[in-house]
Amino acid sequence: MAIDRCVVLAGGTGGAKLAAGLQDVLGDGLAVVANTADDVEVLGIHVSPDPDLVTYWLSDQIDEQRGWGIRDDGFTVFDRLVELGAPDWFKLSDRDLATCIYRTSFVAEGGSFTAAQDQIASRLGARARVLPMSEQPVRTRVRTAEGWRGLQQYLVAERGEPAVEGVEVEGIADAQPTPEVLEAIAGAQAIVIGPSNPVISIGPILAIPGIRDAIAAAPAPVVAVSPYVAGRVVKGPTDAFMRALGRPTDAAGAASMYEGLLDGLVCDDGDPEPPPERPQSLVRPTLMDGQAGRRTLAVATLEFAESLAAPA
Amino acid sequence: MAIDRCVVLAGGTGGAKLAAGLQDVLGDGLAVVANTADDVEVLGIHVSPDPDLVTYWLSDQIDEQRGWGIRDDGFTVFDRLVELGAPDWFKLSDRDLATCIYRTSFVAEGGSFTAAQDQIASRLGARARVLPMSEQPVRTRVRTAEGWRGLQQYLVAERGEPAVEGVEVEGIADAQPTPEVLEAIAGAQAIVIGPSNPVISIGPILAIPGIRDAIAAAPAPVVAVSPYVAGRVVKGPTDAFMRALGRPTDAAGAASMYEGLLDGLVCDDGDPEPPPERPQSLVRPTLMDGQAGRRTLAVATLEFAESLAAPA
Repeated sequence: MAIDRCVVLAGGTGGAKLAAGLQDVLGDGLAVVANTADDVEVLGIHVSPDPDLVTYWLSDQIDEQRGWGIRDDGFTVFDRLVELGAPDWFKLSDRDLATCIYRTSFVAEGGSFTAAQDQIASRLGARARVLPMSEQPVRTRVRTAEGWRGLQQYLVAERGEPAVEGVEVEGIADAQPTPEVLEAIAGAQAIVIGPSNPVISIGPILAIPGIRDAIAAAPAPVVAVSPYVAGRVVKGPTDAFMRALGRPTDAAGAASMYEGLLDGLVCDDGDPEPPPERPQSLVRPTLMDGQAGRRTLAVATLEFAESLAAPA
Repeated sequence: MAIDRCVVLAGGTGGAKLAAGLQDVLGDGLAVVANTADDVEVLGIHVSPDPDLVTYWLSDQIDEQRGWGIRDDGFTVFDRLVELGAPDWFKLSDRDLATCIYRTSFVAEGGSFTAAQDQIASRLGARARVLPMSEQPVRTRVRTAEGWRGLQQYLVAERGEPAVEGVEVEGIADAQPTPEVLEAIAGAQAIVIGPSNPVISIGPILAIPGIRDAIAAAPAPVVAVSPYVAGRVVKGPTDAFMRALGRPTDAAGAASMYEGLLDGLVCDDGDPEPPPERPQSLVRPTLMDGQAGRRTLAVATLEFAESLAAPA
């Protein structure tokens, strides 16, 4: 395989997991563009779940069993904060809190969000770069029957239970992609859209003015990996958001979110529906069981992208 | 004994320890006015060592063996912060960090420093009130041969090793005592100056415009407990600061810092020097060994104050 520079767009679950597989193959040839529309301020601390989860996957700190958070981490500080009277709906584990305090302080002292995540990722031992999609704050809000909610409030405090009626990304019109993101996209030999929630994880990345155009203009083939495995999403509330946007809850629905961008689509071999006719598809097991499973899917995706590349 | 309302001025060590003894006798009849000139911002978090150490003493969380910090607390978060690249000279233990995050967030959201400490103390189970001396930021700075240093930088990073040439309290001229502090002083039946560092712990409290006058004008007798035990300070760099101000390093020197205020002075029965002729003195064991020792000194101090009270 001749690909050694790849960009993957990712949220904090499936896309982050695939990023770990891609890093295993490409090392520092990988750049992960991470969604920051899930970010939230908790007690004055800037929490950025997706870039951090990506970093924990890349540095082998993730709790794989649970699918999120840092392995063997406790909640000493947040348990005490709740005892003192802080709200208890959003708790960070201790080492995860350290990441967030570090970022908040780094940016407060004049550093960029991008440089903070670079430092965090490299100190924790990631080889790939973890690039926040934008320096500007953007925040996904969810409309439910009871009104608008911040995404974390909806997902965590309300457990994603109220029906989703709509989604908006606050601040998106004024956000810009970072130079690092644009450079990574322009220089990539493959652009992979990871198997994350197409609406709330990948959607905000593609909604930043300039990113969709940059991907379309890039010479690299663009391949999405469907988040549907055996017809269902592995984790998270993807279907509720897909339905709110009137999309089918399957690989074709996911691909419809990336219309005009895709050269290829990787679908799970256990999906009940056949893959859509377009774009060209590759059918493989996409669950990514363990390191071997992540690597196998990463190699298959990269080889598929290579096969789709325009002849030089 | 007829005293049931007392104010004690305290830093984070001897004065805090005596406060625990006084609370044991007086319960919620005690108000502790705590020095805040030791405060420091660490990674954007407002650390307030003296009010917090007082609170940990009052809520039986203090590590008595070590004389500071919370018993059995770890450093998970700060160890990780240092791994990420944060400076390593000032580390907070996990539960202590929770206190500081809570205060920082409480004040950032518009609450007062006083209300934050009230909430922290009551949630942790203290019965006495813990009153920061002022809402305004004041910061002790130390002049050494190599220049001015923040107090924590001097004490922690430089381990108090460079000779002290001078001390100033930044912001003191613009600071005001809180209404709660003035009210506690005016309503007290005894005012105790705790056995804390007279220069850097008690000094800043008395230097806030209005506090010295309020104490002098209060009807209650004022009694200082000398920080010298068997002629030496139990903990901390008191002597270096006393010498920098040209004061004797003994009970008389401590009393000289409170000139014009004292009705009485409690001295240790092991001091090599006799107590000063004035003010009237009480000689007792002042080490405060264990809960019984703290309570015994508290009772002796209160009875001494009562004996000094002007006849009604």
